[in-house]
Order: sequence, then C-alpha cells, then structure tokens
Amino acid sequence: MKTIYVLNGPNLNLLGKRQPDLYGTETLDDVTALCTRVADDGFAIHQAQSNYEGGLVDLIHEAREKACGIVINAGAYTHTSVAILDALNTFEGPVMEVHISQVHKRESFRHHSYISMRADGVIAGLGTESYAAAVRRICQLVG
Amino acid sequence: MKTIYVLNGPNLNLLGKRQPDLYGTETLDDVTALCTRVADDGFAIHQAQSNYEGGLVDLIHEAREKACGIVINAGAYTHTSVAILDALNTFEGPVMEVHISQVHKRESFRHHSYISMRADGVIAGLGTESYAAAVRRICQLVG
Amino acid sequence: MKTIYVLNGPNLNLLGKRQPDLYGTETLDDVTALCTRVADDGFAIHQAQSNYEGGLVDLIHEAREKACGIVINAGAYTHTSVAILDALNTFEGPVMEVHISQVHKRESFRHHSYISMRADGVIAGLGTESYAAAVRRICQLVG
Amino acid sequence: MKTIYVLNGPNLNLLGKRQPDLYGTETLDDVTALCTRVADDGFAIHQAQSNYEGGLVDLIHEAREKACGIVINAGAYTHTSVAILDALNTFEGPVMEVHISQVHKRESFRHHSYISMRADGVIAGLGTESYAAAVRRICQLVG
Amino acid sequence: MKTIYVLNGPNLNLLGKRQPDLYGTETLDDVTALCTRVADDGFAIHQAQSNYEGGLVDLIHEAREKACGIVINAGAYTHTSVAILDALNTFEGPVMEVHISQVHKRESFRHHSYISMRADGVIAGLGTESYAAAVRRICQLVG
Amino acid sequence: MKTIYVLNGPNLNLLGKRQPDLYGTETLDDVTALCTRVADDGFAIHQAQSNYEGGLVDLIHEAREKACGIVINAGAYTHTSVAILDALNTFEGPVMEVHISQVHKRESFRHHSYISMRADGVIAGLGTESYAAAVRRICQLVG
Amino acid sequence: MKTIYVLNGPNLNLLGKRQPDLYGTETLDDVTALCTRVADDGFAIHQAQSNYEGGLVDLIHEAREKACGIVINAGAYTHTSVAILDALNTFEGPVMEVHISQVHKRESFRHHSYISMRADGVIAGLGTESYAAAVRRICQLVG
Amino acid sequence: MKTIYVLNGPNLNLLGKRQPDLYGTETLDDVTALCTRVADDGFAIHQAQSNYEGGLVDLIHEAREKACGIVINAGAYTHTSVAILDALNTFEGPVMEVHISQVHKRESFRHHSYISMRADGVIAGLGTESYAAAVRRICQLVG
Amino acid sequence: MKTIYVLNGPNLNLLGKRQPDLYGTETLDDVTALCTRVADDGFAIHQAQSNYEGGLVDLIHEAREKACGIVINAGAYTHTSVAILDALNTFEGPVMEVHISQVHKRESFRHHSYISMRADGVIAGLGTESYAAAVRRICQLVG
Amino acid sequence: MKTIYVLNGPNLNLLGKRQPDLYGTETLDDVTALCTRVADDGFAIHQAQSNYEGGLVDLIHEAREKACGIVINAGAYTHTSVAILDALNTFEGPVMEVHISQVHKRESFRHHSYISMRADGVIAGLGTESYAAAVRRICQLVG
Amino acid sequence: MKTIYVLNGPNLNLLGKRQPDLYGTETLDDVTALCTRVADDGFAIHQAQSNYEGGLVDLIHEAREKACGIVINAGAYTHTSVAILDALNTFEGPVMEVHISQVHKRESFRHHSYISMRADGVIAGLGTESYAAAVRRICQLVG
Amino acid sequence: MKTIYVLNGPNLNLLGKRQPDLYGTETLDDVTALCTRVADDGFAIHQAQSNYEGGLVDLIHEAREKACGIVINAGAYTHTSVAILDALNTFEGPVMEVHISQVHKRESFRHHSYISMRADGVIAGLGTESYAAAVRRICQLVG
Repeated sequence: MKTIYVLNGPNLNLLGKRQPDLYGTETLDDVTALCTRVADDGFAIHQAQSNYEGGLVDLIHEAREKACGIVINAGAYTHTSVAILDALNTFEGPVMEVHISQVHKRESFRHHSYISMRADGVIAGLGTESYAAAVRRICQLVG
Repeated sequence: MKTIYVLNGPNLNLLGKRQPDLYGTETLDDVTALCTRVADDGFAIHQAQSNYEGGLVDLIHEAREKACGIVINAGAYTHTSVAILDALNTFEGPVMEVHISQVHKRESFRHHSYISMRADGVIAGLGTESYAAAVRRICQLVG
Repeated sequence: MKTIYVLNGPNLNLLGKRQPDLYGTETLDDVTALCTRVADDGFAIHQAQSNYEGGLVDLIHEAREKACGIVINAGAYTHTSVAILDALNTFEGPVMEVHISQVHKRESFRHHSYISMRADGVIAGLGTESYAAAVRRICQLVG
Repeated sequence: MKTIYVLNGPNLNLLGKRQPDLYGTETLDDVTALCTRVADDGFAIHQAQSNYEGGLVDLIHEAREKACGIVINAGAYTHTSVAILDALNTFEGPVMEVHISQVHKRESFRHHSYISMRADGVIAGLGTESYAAAVRRICQLVG
Repeated sequence: MKTIYVLNGPNLNLLGKRQPDLYGTETLDDVTALCTRVADDGFAIHQAQSNYEGGLVDLIHEAREKACGIVINAGAYTHTSVAILDALNTFEGPVMEVHISQVHKRESFRHHSYISMRADGVIAGLGTESYAAAVRRICQLVG
Repeated sequence: MKTIYVLNGPNLNLLGKRQPDLYGTETLDDVTALCTRVADDGFAIHQAQSNYEGGLVDLIHEAREKACGIVINAGAYTHTSVAILDALNTFEGPVMEVHISQVHKRESFRHHSYISMRADGVIAGLGTESYAAAVRRICQLVG
Repeated sequence: MKTIYVLNGPNLNLLGKRQPDLYGTETLDDVTALCTRVADDGFAIHQAQSNYEGGLVDLIHEAREKACGIVINAGAYTHTSVAILDALNTFEGPVMEVHISQVHKRESFRHHSYISMRADGVIAGLGTESYAAAVRRICQLVG
Repeated sequence: MKTIYVLNGPNLNLLGKRQPDLYGTETLDDVTALCTRVADDGFAIHQAQSNYEGGLVDLIHEAREKACGIVINAGAYTHTSVAILDALNTFEGPVMEVHISQVHKRESFRHHSYISMRADGVIAGLGTESYAAAVRRICQLVG
Repeated sequence: MKTIYVLNGPNLNLLGKRQPDLYGTETLDDVTALCTRVADDGFAIHQAQSNYEGGLVDLIHEAREKACGIVINAGAYTHTSVAILDALNTFEGPVMEVHISQVHKRESFRHHSYISMRADGVIAGLGTESYAAAVRRICQLVG
Repeated sequence: MKTIYVLNGPNLNLLGKRQPDLYGTETLDDVTALCTRVADDGFAIHQAQSNYEGGLVDLIHEAREKACGIVINAGAYTHTSVAILDALNTFEGPVMEVHISQVHKRESFRHHSYISMRADGVIAGLGTESYAAAVRRICQLVG
Repeated sequence: MKTIYVLNGPNLNLLGKRQPDLYGTETLDDVTALCTRVADDGFAIHQAQSNYEGGLVDLIHEAREKACGIVINAGAYTHTSVAILDALNTFEGPVMEVHISQVHKRESFRHHSYISMRADGVIAGLGTESYAAAVRRICQLVG
Repeated sequence: MKTIYVLNGPNLNLLGKRQPDLYGTETLDDVTALCTRVADDGFAIHQAQSNYEGGLVDLIHEAREKACGIVINAGAYTHTSVAILDALNTFEGPVMEVHISQVHKRESFRHHSYISMRADGVIAGLGTESYAAAVRRICQLVG
C-alpha cells in the first residue's frame, strides 16, 4: 500500500466554515474523502494540517519516510516560505501544488509561489477538485 | 450535446515531434482523444490550433456561439497576448488554462500569464493530463 | 476626394455585441456612419478591422498609398505591438489614436501605448465620439 | 442655462506667448471663444486659470455648486497633484481632461496623470481643438 | 494656556459634505469641538484649514511661535509634499499625523507619507476619533 | 460581557526588558492593565502573546469564537505574514493594528504591513497608548 | 545542395522604400542577391517575409524540414515574440539574428530581444551587410 | 542696469532661524547682500521668496519681463514641482540652481531635481556661497 | 565557563542526510563536536535546532540569559524572518551568521539576509568549517 | 595605407588558453592574422590589448591620431566602463563592437553594453569570425 | 603655503581638443592657470590627470600627505568608481566635486555620482568656472 | 611547497592607517604575518596589493601559474568589477572572498559582490581574522 500525503497550511482548518463564496462549503474531511475516492487502488491518503510553517516542515520530513507523493496546499505560506520549499527539495517523489481558489485573480502578492519552484504540477481554481486532480496525477506517476 | 472547445496556440502543432523531454511524445490528436475519453456523456470535444494570435481570437469568437466551455493552452501567447485575454473576456462560460510543462520552473518571462486574469482554473505541469483535468472540471461546472 | 482610414483591432468586430456597459451598443457600421457624417466635404471614410497584428500592419501599408490620415483603435495591440508602431512610423500623414473606453481607469497594463509614441493625437473615453473627434481633427489638419 | 467650467493650470496664462512651436499662438481668450462657439445652445462657458494647486482645488469646489461639467487642463499639476484628483472626486458631473500637446511623446514623467484616474475622457494633442472636443462631449452627456 | 494646532489640508473644508461613506458626516467644526472636548485642562485647540501647500507651510511656521504640538491631516499633500515635511522639521514639539479613512486600504499612491518621516505618531482609520487620539497623546507628552 | 482580544507577536514578551529607548519600560502586564482601564464598562480584555506565526493564527481563530474585536501588535510578523492576514480576514468584528514605535521612521522593510490590508484602524508611535486608543475605538464601534 | 532560410519580419517588405536614412535604399531582393553572392558553393538562399507573427512561426516550422540554418531579422517581433523564440527552439541548426540598424542606439524597448536567447550569433548595424556576415557564418559552421 | 532674480522657495524665509547646523546662521537678507556684493557692476539683485509653488511660478513669469538671469533655490519644490520646471522653460536667459546644503548626502528623495532638467548650472553644498557662485556665473554669461 | 549558543534553523535536522552534494555528509552532532573541538578553553558549546521561526526566537531569548555569543545558521529563515532579526537585536554579545553552502551562488532570493543586518560576522561556503571559524571568532572577541 | 585598430580588453590576453569551450582555441595572434587576411588592400591591422580600463582609454586616444576605424572587444569593461564610452565618443571614424561568445545568452549583467551606445555595429557570437566581419565592415565604410 | 589638489579623470587630457560644443576650448593648462588666479594668497595649485581609476586613487593617497583640499572632476569614474569614493573617504580636508558640463541634462547614467556621497560641495555646468568656484570655496573653508 | 596568493585591492595599502574604527590598526604586513602563521605546513603565503583593477587582473593571471588557491579582498572593486570576476573564472583552484568589515551592514551598494559569483567561500566582518579563516579553508581543501 502506497501513501499520498495531503498537506494543508494555515487557516485551512477553517475550510468550509469561513468565506464560503471564496472557498466553498466543503471541509477538510470532505477533501480527504474525495481524495480517497479518486485515488487508484493500492493508494492510501494521509491528510494533515498545520497553522505553523515549522509544522509543515515537520510533516514533509515525515513524508520523506512514509509517502510516495505529496499534495500540498500551503495556503499563505505558499507565498512566503522558503523553509517549506527547502523541505520539499529533500523529498524525492512527485509534489503537486494545489489551491482551491484561482490565486492569480487575487492580490498580486498571491501570484508568486515558492512551492512552484519545486512542484511537478500546479493546479488552482478547481475548488476541492484541485486536490482530486493532484491525487490522480500522483497515482499516474507513481503507480 | 454540449461542445467544449480545446484551443491550442503557437508551436503546439509540433506536439510530440519536438523536445520530447519537455513536452512528451503525445500529439494533439492524442490530446483530443484523451479529452474525448474523459469528458462526461453529452459533451463533445472540438480541438483547434493556430500559430496566429489573431487566429486564436477568431477561434474564441467562434466559441462564443458554439461552446459551453473553453480549455486553452495559448502557448507563448499566454505571456504576451492582451488580445486573447480580451477575447476570453467576451466568453461567458468557464475557461480553463492549461500548460503541459510546469511553466513556473522555466524562464521568468513564462511566469506571467494574461490568460490567468480571466481563467477560472489553471493547471500546469501534468503533461497532457492537464487537458484531461480541465475537461473534467468543465463537465463538472456545466453539466 | 481624400480618404481617411479608420482602422480597428482585435475584438472590435464584436463592438455593440459584447460588454455593452463597457463599450456601448453601437457597432462598427455605426462608427463608420458617424465618421462619414462628421467628416468635412471632400473626405471619404474607409473602415477596416482585423484580429491579426499582421493584418493591421498590412492595412497601414495600404494606407500609405491611399489615405490622407489614419484613425486607429488598435484595441489590445495598443499595449503590445511594436510592429504596428513601426508600420505607423512609415506613414506620413496625421495619425489619431482612439479608444472607446477610458483606458487609464482600467488595468495598469492598459496604461502604456506603443501607438502613442507615433500618434499626433490621443482620444480616450468618449465612446464612439472618440472616432468623430479624431476624424474632425484630421480634416482640420489635412483639409 | 447650464455652465461648463473650463479650468486651466500653471503657466497656461502664458498660452500663445511662450513656446509657440509646442503650444501654438492662440491665447486662453481664444480658447474660451472656441469653447463658446462649439458648445450646444443652453450651455455657457466659464473659464478660469490658476498657477496654484490650491487655486485649482478652490475652483473645482466652486464648480461643485455651479457647473454641469468640467474641462480641465491641469498643466504640470496633471502629473503631481493628488489634491486636484481628490477635489475632482467630489464633483459629480462629467470631467474631461485635455492637453494641447501630445504629452505621451514628451518626457516620461509627463506620461502619468492623476487626473486620468477620475476623468471620463482624455484628449491630448489636438491643439486647442482638444478643448472643443471636450466641450462637445460634455454637451452630449449632459444635454 | 497651551495651544494645540489642528491643521487640515486640501478638500477637508468639504468634510461632512462629500463622500460620506468614506469620510462620515461630521464637519471640521465638529472635529474642533471634539478635540476641545478631549483635550486636557490647560490646552486650547486652534483649528485651521488650507487647500494650498504653501498655506500649510505658513500655518506650521505660525505654529512654531504659538503651538505646543501639532495634529495634522495633510490630506492629499501627505503623499506629495516635501515642503510640508521640511516645515514640520523646523517645529520642535510633538507632531501627530492623522487620517480619517484607513489610507493603507486605498490606492497604493496613498500608502506613502512624507509626513510620517517626521511625525511622532500616526493614526489612521478611526474616523474623526483619529483627531481625538492625537490630541490626547499630545496632552500626555506635553502636559 | 464582551471581550476584546489584545494579541501580541514575537519578542513582545520582552516588552519593558529590551531596548527601552525604543519600546519604553512598560511590560505586557502594564499594557493589559492600561487596556482594562480605558475600556468601556461591559468590555473585558484578554491578552495573549506568541512568538509563533502559527500561534497568532491559532489565537485569531480562537477570537472568532470569543471576541467582539481584536487589537493586534503582530511585531515583526506585521511585515512578513500573509497567514495572519488571512486569519484576520476570517474575523468579522473590528480589527485595530497597533505599534508602540513609529514604524515609518525605521528601516524601510518595516513600512509595509500585511495587517493594514485588513485593519480598520492603524495606530503607531504612541507608545503603549497605541493600545489604549485602539481599545477605545473598538468600544466605540462595538458598544 | 544545402538551403539557408533568410526570414524577415514585419514592415521589412517596405525595405528600401521607407525611412532610407535609417534603413538604406536596398530592397529585400537586393538582400537575397547579396546573400546568394556571399554564400559558399553548395548553399542556396531561400528568402521569405511575413508581417504576421504566426507567419514567421510557420516559416520556421517549414525550415525545420528544409533548412540547414536560419538568418532571421524578426523586426519588431524581435522584442515582443515568445512564439518565435519557441519556434526557433525547435530548430536544430545554427540561427543568426540580424538587424540592419544598430538597435542598441534606438529606443530602450528595442534593446531586449527574445530571439537572442536562442541565436548563436547576433549582428546589428552593418546595414544589409549584417545579412552577408550571417550567411558567411552559417556556411562556416555547417559547411 | 540688468537685474538678476534670486528666487527662494518654501521654508527659506526661516533661513538663519532654523536648523543652523544644516543651513547656517545667515538670513535671506544676508544672501541678498552677498549677491549684490559679488555681482559685477551694472547688475542689480532682486530677491523674492514664496512658500507657494504657484507663487514661484508667478515670480518666474515676472522674471520673463524683468530679469537677465535667474538664481533659484526652490527648496523642497526642487524635488516635486513640474510646474516650476515648466515656468523656467519659458525663460530664455541663464538659470542657476542652488542649494545651501549638499543635497546628495541627504535623503534619497532629495537626489532628484526637476529644476536640473532646465538649469544651466547646479551648485550645492557651498552654504550661502552657492548663491555667490551662481551670481558670478550669470554675470559672466550675460555681461 | 562561558557558553556559545550554536543555533540551527529549518531542515538542518536533516544535515548529512539530504542533498549531500550541497551540504556534505556531516550531521549536526558532528558540527557540535567540531565546535567544541575548536573552541578555546573555558568555552562550552550549546547546540539547538528548530524548524519553527518562533522556536528560534525562543532559543535566542534563552541565549540572552545564558550565552556569551551566538553562532546562527537560520537556514531558510535567513531570507524571510524579521522576527529572528528582532530577537537578535535584543542580544548584546557577538553574533556570527553562518551558511554551509555558498548562498550567493544559489537562487537570487537567497542573496538577501535579514540576519546580516545584525550579525557581526558572516561566513558562507566553508562547509561545516563555517561553524568552526565562527566559534573561533567569538572566542577571540569574548575571551 | 590606412590602419584599423583592433583593441582587446581584460583577460583577452588569455584567449586560446582559458575556457576553450566558451572562447575557442585561437589566440590573439590568430585574431590579428585573421583580420589582416580579410582586410581589403590598403588597410593595415594594429592589434593591442590591455587589462586596464585606463589602458584602453589611452589606446583609443592613440587611435584618434592613427586609425581610420576601431574594432573593439572591451571584454568585461563592455558592461561597466563609461570611461571607454567617453573615449570612443571622441573618435570620429567607424567603431565596431565585437564579442567572441554570444553575450546575450550569458548572465544578465552581460546584456548591457556601454560600448553599444557609440558603436556603429555590434557583432556577437561568431567566435573569432566576429572580428573578421567587423574588419570587413570598416573597410566597406572607409574604403 | 597650502596646496590644493585639482584632480582630473579619464579623457580630460583631451580637454579643449574634443567636442568643443560640450566642453569648450580651454585646456587643462588653462584650468590650472584659472585656479591659480582665483586662489587666495597662500594657496598653491597642484593639477594632475589620469585615465586610470587606480591612478586617481594613488593621487588621492598622495593628497592625504600634501593637500589641504581636493577639487576633483573624476569624469566618467564619477558614475562608476567606488574605489575613488573610498579613497576620498580617507581624506580629511574639504572635497569639491566639479563638472564642466551640466551632467544632469545628459544621459541618465550620468545622474548618479559616487563622489557626491563624500563631496562637501558639487558644482556642475559652469564650464571651467566650476573649478574656480570650487577653489574659492576651499580657500574660504580652509583659509 | 604550495603557495596561496593573498590579493588586496584599492585603498588596502592604507590598512591600519585610515579609519581605524572601521578597519582596525593592523597593516597589510600584519595580515601577511597572520596568514603565514595560520597556514598549514607546506604552504607559503604570497601577498600583493594594487589600486588598479587591471593590476588585480594581472595578479590573478600570475596566480594561474603559481598558486594553489587565492584569498582575495578586492575592496571597492568587489562591487563593480566584472573584469576581476572573469579573471577569477580562469583560475581553477579554490577562491576565498574576504572582507575586514561586515559589508552587509554598510551602504546598500556594498551588498552586491561580483566576486561572490565565483568564490567558493565568503567571509566578512571578522577583522583581519577573515584572512586567517580563508587561509585555513584553502589548506583544508588543497592540502
């Protein structure tokens, strides 16, 4: 059984509870369920969330040992965290960067992503389907 | 029967024939077949390619009459064409921007996209699967 | 009889059909009629439109032979086309740059105009009256 | 009887007396006469000039009480005055920004206009005809 | 008896009369009354307004002779006036910069303040309470 | 009883112990006491501090449940944290941004604030009185 | 027999007819003759011109099949076209970028060249001799 | 008798009274006396000062009628006033720009001068001797 | 006995385990041993690592009480953390910034260091010897 | 007999000895021989090299007396030397700027050339043939 | 007897021989004579010129031993040389920066001066009188 | 016996004689002695200094023949010399860049180093110990 880590950054614990016009009404549990549903047989989903930059670094280090691929929505840290980029650079499997909203239509400081310098794929604006597309791609690459 | 326009920009007629390490070995016909395969029932795929900026504008105008959604890989015009952005702004259905390679890991002039100012979703780096994810999303939104 | 070329760029074929709150409900034919009405006696109006940058270059080359002045609304190419600027630099009569909307109140990438480096006059935001004012000025300069 | 305020900024009191190759030989009185001539019936022209940024703010405040529209050539303050922009933002009728010369062909610091952020129309490079076109437009909008 | 100068810049004479959603319905007289009310015993308020940059320079020079502190809302000159900054640099008591609206949420050219290079405190977005907080602080510092 | 959250960021646990010429000699406990003193009847003060960006995100999430308003001195995270901005964007009551020192007179990287993009008011340079003015304003808005 | 493609961009069809002080009096036919004259034995010259960005992309695609080297004067597209750069990136033989005038002494927007990111050699300011030097170099490299 | 206008901008009425370490202890009257002393026979000095940008424009207009040369210390307006530059552009005799302090060693916003775009000479940092050197130069050029 | 704090930032817990071509094969324990070996008699080494920005702030606060000097390799936070800079600004002994790789030869976002604004010395590219040189310097300064 | 000066800047004395993949294996003597071979009858070649910016200035001053044209490869000084530009500005014959490698494909600081502001022609990337093309052009212009 | 060093940079050995419309017809010997004439009694002039940046550094080092003040026209090195700035920083007497032409009206790269960061006075555009004014000022300061 | 070249740039001949608060009181001879003392057995130190950019290029060329490693303090040329960078690029052994002061705490133009693009290690702010650390590192790498 291979495991895909689905990592979520700051404020995503509120998913489905805040700004529904921007982020929809689905929760992180719904995301986990969706990812599990679309994953190929033989793949498990491990979802984790942290509001801490260092917490995400820890999770990626953990993934180095346990995961075949990473789907990451680093939230606000997408735009500011070199530490997460460096952590991802130590990971050898495929990395998919996802965003629920279409970040390129929002404030200009959201147009730059440190994660994109490492990610093998970037998916934005598909709502929670962004996660599904990322999981499908990892299965395709790793499977 | 609803039609999704899959539009491709300059040099994509060479897909599968040039720089396979960057773009893979699948051709535009393979892309069309893939899109047809993943589309929901009741959706047809219309693929078209042009090396001309004005040609893409024309195709988008045509889509205004005939399409329920647009998947567009504007190639190099992604980064330089306000005209295509303006054409897309006249289209009312969902627009998905796709890239075969992960453009954010390439030269810095490829990091800016005029298309992203209009696109409802952006998918980059999944190879030809980028098209598939886009078609799935349009079916989901329009269906 | 002197001829004034009234040239229109990408997406202006849709004038009156798209985004009426931004561009109004008059069509290119209405613009041609308006220009004809306000031109002084002895002046004819020749209107042409192209979605192609190269098409506008061709039209300007044609104007070199046939026109006493050019009114040009290059649409999106206003902001990106050095080729059209170079073509206009080969034309010896007066050139009037027009815009239907007040471009300086829109996105910042619309604030720069290559056409303005050559144009003798610039008129923006008067709706289709921008064309009328331009035609009047050419008659005044050439007449 | 409706009144259009035609406001002129610094150094325009010298119009017709300085740099005739750049600004022509007509004076502000000629401009007032021209504006009166082209205005529709039922419209009066009130022309005023000030070399003071605060003087133009005062004149715009006065226009709030008395004018149906403003034609403004703020001269050098076009490029530097947020105060005049703020004053114009308190005015509810149409505002036309005019320039005698084609400012976009001059020094780069003349390419930016604070007035354009509020103006409904911008006309540059038609000589004193810029004022005439502006007055015509206000009559059309207000009349 | 110590006097606090409360100085107001361009367009603030219209306070309470223009754009009430942005600036509220209180007038400068209300501001003066509020400042008088919150000032400690032994402090008088002297309010003055000018639409002229030079007028504000004159008022600050006057304050050098007569005031123990300055509260200044320089309006649009906040962003453009080195002359007012230089005048404030000749004043030795405390200077409080105030803004009625939260300027940092408005256009980017309003994010820079020359006054802030000299001001001991900056208060923005409290409505007319910004003045009250500034007066309280000066009383605290000088009293 | 309504509660105002007074949140403090990195290094503010040292308040009153480090660099007294820049930050004074009052401690966070003094700040809490001051805020309690100036708050209107019916308002309680809850003060909390964290050196962790994620810790401040957590505190703001807590405030979503328990607070009627937030006073925040995010310290260094003011200039670097999109995550805190995003957390504040999920909060519906008034947010006051405070700084003890006048940040605009310090290094240029301290002039930009992500918090200001959300804050209803910004107060800098009043020493610990900045907190008092913020609390007063929240009472005024919420009370 | 090996063929060298000599490709010319927008407005170069007017060569010898416009702005002779900048571009001289020789026509494209003269250029073709010159290139033929200086080419080594065993090399043929194929000259083509287009005012269309897409037209140049098409010509480069054609060259992929038929040419041993490309001499390209992309005119104005030199400075704006990523599409032509991408097309040239699919060509495997030597590419020489030429300009008749010394572009680095003209407007600053002419100092940047997308073509240079691919070209093996760049020659500017030698008049039509720029083409001759480019042809000589390709013969030297390929011969 | 020829007259040299010595014009001074905002805050220079305080010369000798404020910041003596930066500007010295001499007053404007001392400057006038110094200028008169160093001027060649046959030259009179007319000194004038204004805190108003428009006031300096007026004085330059007056100089057009009465002066053979202008020495101008525009103070803070040096860095912000296009209006004064435009006024000087209407003056035909020599213009000398002077500064008492060495402005290039102060804040960076004082390094740019609009006046320098017109001035025939620039003298900074000689204290009030800057004026003397300027007067000598005008006598040399005009005499 | 004096103590030198050797602090390490995010991902350095993986030292010797990831990207050995960039960072070598020595672990943090090796670094601690090396530092102990090169330190002068009378100096102890205390090594600590955190993936959390706030964790490093905490460690620096601890060093305020216990350390005579700090050697810090803040990893990715070097480039993004004002909070760590502020914490270091509260420390009074010598601070040495170290990097294992030569950061100035890597991506441009690694060329800027907030730590350098406070550090007394900066050492990059000596591998783990960077730590040794830093420890030697602190002994020399403090000893 | 007319003389062409072929001037070479810093590190070019190592030509043929260093980095052969970038600069080839030919030496400066080979370049001199090549230039002599391609020069028209009646032209002599004088080659000189200096590692000193001032040395190149001296050589250009010498050329003012003795040369009919200059071919210059200023090496690294191309990008940094205003002094050499100024020296070339005092020379009246044709100036050809040459580079062995295609500098526009190298680091971005090599894209700017002060020499290009004066050079009549620029040739880069042809290897030592760049010199030959330059000599041919000077013969053509001067002969 | 006190000595003033008058130092001249690259290309100034050609003074009076090149570009007389820009630099006049006086030679460096004329400059030396002029400086000697205007110097106060008890002051000698030592003039020296070098085309080498290092040569000017050497001359300034020599001045450290022998001169009471330095007048320097560093020519092109004004804009590029940190080494000369550093050398001047080791000199303790007054430094006057001079330019013959009004550099601020020339190319923008001539607007920045490293010398100005150290110079006590800056004089530009007075022709060779710039030197005279500088010598007078040094006599005044040192005398 | 292996030789390490210790190269020093402009103004460093004054080391120990100028600005002792910034550079200390040790001379270049002291530096040479220190380097000799810390070098491993079998290594000799060759120290050389030049105020000339070309002089440093010459010294590096000499090192190509004679040295196993280079320690370079290029002084002001660190920030401006591409020529020295190019020279170092022709050297194959290790290069250590050193600075006596901590350059990153000084003016911003001292933050950029061309030398760093080549240097294997960078050491700043350790006083003359910077040289010692560099020599130790070269011995470690080469020995």
